[in-house]
Amino acid sequence: MRDMLGREEVITVEKALEFILKNLSEVFPPEIKLNIEHSCGRILSRDIYSPENLPQFARSTVDGFAVNSSDTFGASDGLPAYLNIAGEVLMGAMPDFELKKGMAGKIATGGMLPIGADAVVMIEHAQTIDEKMIEVVKPAAPGENVIQAGEDIKKSALVLKKGHRLRPQDTGALAGLGITDVYVYEKPKVSIISTGNEIVPANNDVKPGQVRDINSFNLAGLISEAGGEPVKRGIFKDEYSVIKKVVEESLKDSAMALITGGSSVGTKDMTAKIINDVGSPGVLFHGVSIKPGKPLIGGIINNTPVFGLPGHPAAITVCFEQFIEPVLKKLTGISKNRFRGRKLVVAAKMAKNIASSSGREDHIRVALEQKDDEIWANPIMGKSGLITTLVKADGIVVIPLRKLGVEQGEVVEVRLF
Amino acid sequence: MRDMLGREEVITVEKALEFILKNLSEVFPPEIKLNIEHSCGRILSRDIYSPENLPQFARSTVDGFAVNSSDTFGASDGLPAYLNIAGEVLMGAMPDFELKKGMAGKIATGGMLPIGADAVVMIEHAQTIDEKMIEVVKPAAPGENVIQAGEDIKKSALVLKKGHRLRPQDTGALAGLGITDVYVYEKPKVSIISTGNEIVPANNDVKPGQVRDINSFNLAGLISEAGGEPVKRGIFKDEYSVIKKVVEESLKDSAMALITGGSSVGTKDMTAKIINDVGSPGVLFHGVSIKPGKPLIGGIINNTPVFGLPGHPAAITVCFEQFIEPVLKKLTGISKNRFRGRKLVVAAKMAKNIASSSGREDHIRVALEQKDDEIWANPIMGKSGLITTLVKADGIVVIPLRKLGVEQGEVVEVRLF
Repeated sequence: MRDMLGREEVITVEKALEFILKNLSEVFPPEIKLNIEHSCGRILSRDIYSPENLPQFARSTVDGFAVNSSDTFGASDGLPAYLNIAGEVLMGAMPDFELKKGMAGKIATGGMLPIGADAVVMIEHAQTIDEKMIEVVKPAAPGENVIQAGEDIKKSALVLKKGHRLRPQDTGALAGLGITDVYVYEKPKVSIISTGNEIVPANNDVKPGQVRDINSFNLAGLISEAGGEPVKRGIFKDEYSVIKKVVEESLKDSAMALITGGSSVGTKDMTAKIINDVGSPGVLFHGVSIKPGKPLIGGIINNTPVFGLPGHPAAITVCFEQFIEPVLKKLTGISKNRFRGRKLVVAAKMAKNIASSSGREDHIRVALEQKDDEIWANPIMGKSGLITTLVKADGIVVIPLRKLGVEQGEVVEVRLF
Repeated sequence: MRDMLGREEVITVEKALEFILKNLSEVFPPEIKLNIEHSCGRILSRDIYSPENLPQFARSTVDGFAVNSSDTFGASDGLPAYLNIAGEVLMGAMPDFELKKGMAGKIATGGMLPIGADAVVMIEHAQTIDEKMIEVVKPAAPGENVIQAGEDIKKSALVLKKGHRLRPQDTGALAGLGITDVYVYEKPKVSIISTGNEIVPANNDVKPGQVRDINSFNLAGLISEAGGEPVKRGIFKDEYSVIKKVVEESLKDSAMALITGGSSVGTKDMTAKIINDVGSPGVLFHGVSIKPGKPLIGGIINNTPVFGLPGHPAAITVCFEQFIEPVLKKLTGISKNRFRGRKLVVAAKMAKNIASSSGREDHIRVALEQKDDEIWANPIMGKSGLITTLVKADGIVVIPLRKLGVEQGEVVEVRLF
């Protein structure tokens, strides 16, 4: 089998991914308006500028007395400054008094500074003499214990950028500005096309020779976690015209299509042929130096990525993490300038010697075990066709292309599921 | 202010958390039945045993020929084994032939082995002589290239344990067994009680002295991400009877209650008094050696944790990560024997000298910046009352209790949001 460029050799993981991403023009999903209550995790489709100052007035950050700082200069335990209490600031209201020289106003955290005040003396640094007078034992610098109007966010400032993934604190900032609706990108739809004459739906009884559809459930979960919207197209017979038709239909409303299985002899070539026949450029690579996952097919049809995935459950997970997730991220509209959303990684010691062939990336599933202060990674040795190798595992250790294995006790990086 | 045990000093983060967890009896949330399509991320409330073998029959893991392995012993390029083709296994069907001595059956990946076969020869190791005969050039060991009946999951085996958080591959395994519904714990409800006479809803205009409710949005997002269900009780005036009543109502259907704000003079003591008055044991600690977040109040009322949170946005996030999230995790029913769900951490170099007082944990918000191959952490220096200190930040660096700061260029661990 050769791809459209006449290549016959399988290519490296890095090259294969680069090949897909390079051939994919940037497209942004349609935008929708959402209430900020439901916006966490979504990607902003527009820059957001502040319509006003936050806060709109100078506020105290402590409980104490609003003062004119110049009235407190030089104050100390030995030589306190005596100030007349002009009134008390009520929370949530404009002060009903102004500070003249030598006056102070009782104020709580978050209270609005009265006119004439430029600082707040903490309650710990003031003594109440009587109802009308305090003594201040420590000077307050101008602006001390005050959040100025607009200090948090200035009117017209860029608050959040297009492409930003909203976090809890971001929705808090928007609420503070009175912005209760935002425009975000729709999640990219990813069609899952399950193929195989032996595959039956999960709620069916199985007859001899049949197995239930496992992969579409695993894939749907992985797609959701990566920020996409899985669309199960159904289970289809291994026939050229049947699969070609569903691929064509999927491309009408999906940002990506995944064809899984197709395990009959010749079916792998059929998937590649369909990808080439439905549109251009078609297949970009067929076969990657990765285990499990070697038979992966990657292509693009009219700027929509289409993957042909091997049917083995472990291969599905490895191919998703290595190829589909990075491509899907690009389709969500997320910008790359933030450090969020990377995979969790933990260092562990390998519990057994593991051999690996040079010239392929080996993705070893491991179960983690805490022994005293150390974490050990126990390799799960079953065939990649077994779903339980993934169920028993906590994550994956990658043995790179040119490494011939890992020794017992060697520290490895485990990418957690 | 003293807590119920007469303590006056603030306690360490570690002690405060331990104190809450120790005084909390284990309770499990009610269970609900969910379709596995919607179960990712949910916590199983029952052990799941396999109702059948997976697969139910021996299957081929490769494309090739099903054989009786003893017919291939000693086969080589020089001395091939010649086998008669008895038929072809159709995908999804029981083979309509049996293998007698000296026979082979054409089979594809996933096909059911015919009676008489115990191994599969890969297509690469067999040559087709004519329609009726192949030559095998490599011996197949018994069981080679075969998944045995029940090899993935045995009938009656424990597949997933109570307390396990379902991942995509787990739903795949359940689908494979025909288990399409599972029992999971309901998400623990967490009541958010916003207090403060100056606080108005996010969709209100603000008058002088007023600010919009920021913290309930930040908290709701944090609660959802941690596996809880936020229940916003509303915004309440700083009055003993008002807040006491809403705390009592919240405790009727919530697994936890959070009281935020209350920034008027004396309100912090009022929150503690309410927690003590509503039920026992009441307040367990009042004040923690952490910055921001020092005024945190932690208590338990009739085995329901109740926290009084300071009103500063940055304090809310730090207190949530340090206290509320670990307690909330315990309330979800999740078991602790898996490595999933830890916070993402990245190593970075501190871009500036940062001083810290001994005797408190300093939680410094930082923005990350990639320069060549290094990641630098730029501390965000604003007051903890500013929500933008969290919006501009990518994560938090903790300076431990006894450390007097971090020097420029020192490598620190950044806990990402």
